[in-house]
Amino acid sequence: MLTIAYFGPAGTFTEAALATMERNGTIASPVRREPASSPPAALAAVRAGTADLACVPIESSVDGPVVPTLDALATGNPLQVIAETTLPIAFAIATRPGATATSIRTVAAYPVAAAQVQQWLHANLPGATTVAAGSNAAAADDVANDRADAAVTTDLAARQRGLDTLASEVADVAGATTSFVLVGPPASPPPRTGSDRTSIVLGLPNLPGSLARAMNEFALRDIDLTRIQSRPTRTGMGTYRFYIDCRGHIDDTAVGEALKALHRSGAEVRYLGSWPTATSDAQSPPDDTAECEWLERLRRGERP
Amino acid sequence: MLTIAYFGPAGTFTEAALATMERNGTIASPVRREPASSPPAALAAVRAGTADLACVPIESSVDGPVVPTLDALATGNPLQVIAETTLPIAFAIATRPGATATSIRTVAAYPVAAAQVQQWLHANLPGATTVAAGSNAAAADDVANDRADAAVTTDLAARQRGLDTLASEVADVAGATTSFVLVGPPASPPPRTGSDRTSIVLGLPNLPGSLARAMNEFALRDIDLTRIQSRPTRTGMGTYRFYIDCRGHIDDTAVGEALKALHRSGAEVRYLGSWPTATSDAQSPPDDTAECEWLERLRRGERP
Repeated sequence: MLTIAYFGPAGTFTEAALATMERNGTIASPVRREPASSPPAALAAVRAGTADLACVPIESSVDGPVVPTLDALATGNPLQVIAETTLPIAFAIATRPGATATSIRTVAAYPVAAAQVQQWLHANLPGATTVAAGSNAAAADDVANDRADAAVTTDLAARQRGLDTLASEVADVAGATTSFVLVGPPASPPPRTGSDRTSIVLGLPNLPGSLARAMNEFALRDIDLTRIQSRPTRTGMGTYRFYIDCRGHIDDTAVGEALKALHRSGAEVRYLGSWPTATSDAQSPPDDTAECEWLERLRRGERP
Repeated sequence: MLTIAYFGPAGTFTEAALATMERNGTIASPVRREPASSPPAALAAVRAGTADLACVPIESSVDGPVVPTLDALATGNPLQVIAETTLPIAFAIATRPGATATSIRTVAAYPVAAAQVQQWLHANLPGATTVAAGSNAAAADDVANDRADAAVTTDLAARQRGLDTLASEVADVAGATTSFVLVGPPASPPPRTGSDRTSIVLGLPNLPGSLARAMNEFALRDIDLTRIQSRPTRTGMGTYRFYIDCRGHIDDTAVGEALKALHRSGAEVRYLGSWPTATSDAQSPPDDTAECEWLERLRRGERP
């Protein structure tokens, strides 16, 4: 039985993402789900050995990268991303069984969620007052415990608490998605599929020349970058960390060569993993050949 | 009288940032402050002409770039950043006048804020229950309106509502800051000070080679980048937008030359402004000379 820590409480979109990965066979074994209070806390459980894996949000199409997740992956003992999944972010409007729209006076909602369904509430429950809840899951608790008549919540949280769903897939702006990753201790990455993503954290001492040189290592080998984000490390003036995702797998020669070149240039390279992409947007870069003990050790799951 | 839209409601950290810029002379005229429901809504007020300027958060030391602000600057009619300020993010614990710690049973808190003062509440108000509020300012309203005994809020919101402050500068992790910018319609930028920041949005058709080439235009001229972040534009596969901040002013020859080179390379360059940095971390790049009508028009506040 695998223990998987996730950004909780029960019923969050993160738990729904974990459930999706269990359903679609990404996770083969039976699973015990363990809620954690934050993405860094879920990752800390893997480092502490109290969980085998962690499921955490990594990027929102609206709010961008989930920086606390990236920061927690970049510092502390090495961890490795082994899978991803992307969920549409739309809400369920849940009530106690038998309730009707006209009987709804109060709607519990996490403030961030309330902002995303404002127009829907205005059009469909114009007489109701919104009351703040501590999370999407806590909003469902507020209805289950009679503190509000309806909740802006997730389908999963509504089901878990035996609530009725008045409406689902509610979102003022359609198309918002969030990506979630499954993270474990360092190990050999899942096999190359031809549609993979590789993620690294690059520590560079000085910005202008060194970043351009690092970018060139990818460009020279026709490797597409799918994310780049700088973060000040706060260890010194002008010292930055870069979160870089590219298409391809560490077992693709081009990607391996690029990592090797970065490592040899003296950059601090933290390998976060290679895994199959959730979407078909990733194509492997062209092939090539080479040898490097450092790279071979990363491929074996070691952290030289 | 200037009308300045800000990310409200009254008493937010954004309003405190605006008040700081009024106090320190960044804004010279008398000001009418107009709350907006989100950073994009504050920027929309400037585009619609109902506000002269907008004050919005742009980067948190904990959560990274405020992507909705950056996205709203990158799309729609051009806007221009003219000033910045950075505030420590620490909270006030506010009560109705005369209340004592022992009489506090409930603490209203915006869930995001509650997470940042959890240890403090546990140590100082162990018997109190946290109840969710819709924003930091709404938490203060909950106390003013007798719906909670104490609020996790801002000093400004507590003062505005005549509340007492039981504790201030409360934060479990010290040192968190957020940067805010003042944004107006396109105009000649504030004069070069020698410690300035320049911000652009770069649209690149294809990632690998073009990003490396763009980085080289900065590196060649010894210009430090202080932020780079990619965002998918969702207009097509593999099409990205980059938010790039560098040290220096458009009137510094090196910065001007770099922008010119990017423009001539066919990249879509949206100039977001040059302004004095809040901190002394920015030094101008070395000097050089050149001529370019496109650049001269940007310097005059036009958008060719």
